[in-house]
Amino acid sequence: MIFVTGNSNKLEEAKRYLKPLGMEVEQMMIDGSIPELIEPQFDDLEKIAIFKADQAIAMIPESEKSDCAILVEDSGLFIDSLNGFPGSYSSFVFRKIGVDGILRLMSGKSMKGCEYRAVSVLVIGGRTIIAKGICRGNISEEISGTGGFGYDPIFIPEDSDGRTFAQMTKEEKSSISHRGKSLKALCEAISSPSM
Amino acid sequence: MIFVTGNSNKLEEAKRYLKPLGMEVEQMMIDGSIPELIEPQFDDLEKIAIFKADQAIAMIPESEKSDCAILVEDSGLFIDSLNGFPGSYSSFVFRKIGVDGILRLMSGKSMKGCEYRAVSVLVIGGRTIIAKGICRGNISEEISGTGGFGYDPIFIPEDSDGRTFAQMTKEEKSSISHRGKSLKALCEAISSPSM
Repeated sequence: MIFVTGNSNKLEEAKRYLKPLGMEVEQMMIDGSIPELIEPQFDDLEKIAIFKADQAIAMIPESEKSDCAILVEDSGLFIDSLNGFPGSYSSFVFRKIGVDGILRLMSGKSMKGCEYRAVSVLVIGGRTIIAKGICRGNISEEISGTGGFGYDPIFIPEDSDGRTFAQMTKEEKSSISHRGKSLKALCEAISSPSM
Repeated sequence: MIFVTGNSNKLEEAKRYLKPLGMEVEQMMIDGSIPELIEPQFDDLEKIAIFKADQAIAMIPESEKSDCAILVEDSGLFIDSLNGFPGSYSSFVFRKIGVDGILRLMSGKSMKGCEYRAVSVLVIGGRTIIAKGICRGNISEEISGTGGFGYDPIFIPEDSDGRTFAQMTKEEKSSISHRGKSLKALCEAISSPSM
C-alpha cells in the first residue's frame, strides 16, 4: 500500500495501524521525492482527499496501476464556535498562527466544543474506499504536553481524564483518535466480504 | 475581456477600471452559470491565479480561444505579525472568523502593519500577462465603515487620513487599492508597444 503524505507523523500512524493486519505501508516516491499534490481550497475533507487520490493515481504508470493500492488521508480540527475553523485549512492556519492563535480566538468563549476529523481514501484495483473518523473534544485553556503534532497540545478528547492528545502516548492517542478510527474503518471495509 | 470571478465587487471594480481604456469586461459564464475553478492551497497568490487562469482557458472551446481574453484575479490580506495570515486563504478565513477574529488575533500586538496584495493574470492571444498591486496599511483597533468588502472595515491604508477602506468611496479606494494598482499595471502592460 502506498501512502501519499508529506507528514511523517501520519505515515508512522498508518504503518502502526495497518501492520498488524498484514498491510505494509510505504511513502509514495516519484523520482526519489514525495510527489507534491495539489490540495484544493474545499471546505470538505472528503472532496480534498478524493481530489488528491485522483492526482496520485494519475502519476502511476498504467502498467502498474492494477497492482497498486494508493492511500490518501486528509484531516482537520473543526471548532464549533468558530464555524468549523480551521477545518480543512488546519495545516496552513497552524503554520501561520499556531496553537497560540487558536487559544487567542477562543479566549472568553464558553463553548469549547470541537472535533478532529479524518478521511482516508484508498484506491485499490479500480475501487475507491472512503473511511471517516471523528474524535470529539474540547479546546483546552492552555497548551499542555509535548507529544503528537498540530493542535494536539490544546485538544482534550471527550471521555478522557482531561489530558490533551499531546500528553498521551502514541498508542493511547491512536486508540481513540480520528485518524485511528478512519484507519480502523478502512481496515474493516478491506476485510469485508464485499471487497 | 472575460473575467472569471464569483465576487461581484471584484467584477465591478475591474469594469470601472478598464472601461475608460475601452475594454469591456464581462463575467465568464459556462452553460448559464459562473464556472467553479479549483483554487489550490498555495501560499503564493500568483501561483493560484495562474492555476485558475489555466483552468479557465481549458474551458473555452478551441475555436474561440484566439479571440478570447481571460482575466483572473486573486488577492489577500497579509498581516506582518501573523506571518502573512490570512494571506491567500483570506476568503475562507473571512467566512469563518470574520474581521472580529482578526481583531482578536491582533489585540495587544503593537505591530499593526499589513498589506493587501492583488495579482491579475490576463491570458490574451496565447500570451500571459501578470500584474501585481500592493497596498500597505495597518490593522485598525476597531471596525469602521460599511463600504467595501472583506477586511476593508479594519484596513487603514498608509498615507491616508486614518480612515479604513470601508469608510472611503469606491473611487477613493480604487485610486490607492491593491486591486486598482494591479489593474493599472495590467493596463500599462497591455498598452505597451511590446504587446
